Amino acid sequence: MAKDGTDSERATAAQRRAPAGAAVLREDKTAAIRAAVFEELAAVGFARMSIEGIARRAGVGKTAVYRRWRSKLHLVLDVVSAVAAAGLPAPDTGSLRGDVRMLLEVAARALRHPMASQIIPDLLAEAARSPEMATALKTALHDSQEGVAAAVVARAVERGELTEGVDARLALDLMTGPLYWRLLVVRDEVPGGYLDALSGSVAVALGAE
Amino acid sequence: MAKDGTDSERATAAQRRAPAGAAVLREDKTAAIRAAVFEELAAVGFARMSIEGIARRAGVGKTAVYRRWRSKLHLVLDVVSAVAAAGLPAPDTGSLRGDVRMLLEVAARALRHPMASQIIPDLLAEAARSPEMATALKTALHDSQEGVAAAVVARAVERGELTEGVDARLALDLMTGPLYWRLLVVRDEVPGGYLDALSGSVAVALGAE
Repeated sequence: MAKDGTDSERATAAQRRAPAGAAVLREDKTAAIRAAVFEELAAVGFARMSIEGIARRAGVGKTAVYRRWRSKLHLVLDVVSAVAAAGLPAPDTGSLRGDVRMLLEVAARALRHPMASQIIPDLLAEAARSPEMATALKTALHDSQEGVAAAVVARAVERGELTEGVDARLALDLMTGPLYWRLLVVRDEVPGGYLDALSGSVAVALGAE
Repeated sequence: MAKDGTDSERATAAQRRAPAGAAVLREDKTAAIRAAVFEELAAVGFARMSIEGIARRAGVGKTAVYRRWRSKLHLVLDVVSAVAAAGLPAPDTGSLRGDVRMLLEVAARALRHPMASQIIPDLLAEAARSPEMATALKTALHDSQEGVAAAVVARAVERGELTEGVDARLALDLMTGPLYWRLLVVRDEVPGGYLDALSGSVAVALGAE
């Protein structure tokens, strides 16, 4: 297993942070650790995963992890925030129903991904007892999704499909909740025609004719 | 700590199961263990909780637990199934919107309960990696909720509020998903007027005027 603090590591220019006097951190190790976090989360879950397991999977020493993040929680929060920051594309199909349909399509694909369908429930379980995790997830969800829902609603208002005054939070809950419930709570399939029916229902629920 | 297999235990008439030749199981111990499961689930979560911790909290010996359930998973599944079997009341307020509003009210109270808001995400995290848990939860949710949603829709059809052919599963997803998303995914509050707005939107989404 690789040890940290070698000359080659210190010589690497790329770095994520460099407190005064600290050695430079190798980016390839950072990337390997980040990837290992997702794999460990999916394999054993947040509660059971350890820094040791992450380090082993990443092919680095435990010190390499601790030099970058001070705890398992901080490591996971950082990785999750990075994914959330990537955000969702705001669809612009020309109709509310079409926009909702596209959002549902993207969300269904993401939620059905084996890794997401294991990691998300796990992080939510942790959020139930860690206020730090709960705040981080709320911020991540807010940043990545509420803007998208608001943009979809705003364009529908511009087109005259909706009247002003639709609550963006209620809109987001209606767009994401039913699909999330089906895929990650009941853990059931999405039957044929379901996304069409749901996007139509959601558009109507928001006030479209 | 109490030890099992005492004369008084064997003399108790009430029992949950009695394999040939097995000692009778004391109902009060069974009840104490069941209560301890909820408390341990809320306190440390499924992944971290142990039969030892449950036994300690219940004031019984580990053997008392293992004589009743063969594993932590079986114990939790049994307790969860019992709660689900209790079911939700099917509201009958005279209007679709009123029925949905009442369902949301009951669900919001349940989901906001500190114990539920910790235990449910935890069990879902376990369901993501235990097919046995996933099946048990799906059955529990199906038994307790799909019938209620179907009954609400059926009554609305009888009253002429909805036309026939509403998909009961889609109806359930619309009734439960948005609130679940808000309370246990985003872990946000339910603002004033939210349940009114949501029940109105859901009724419209299902096809009400």
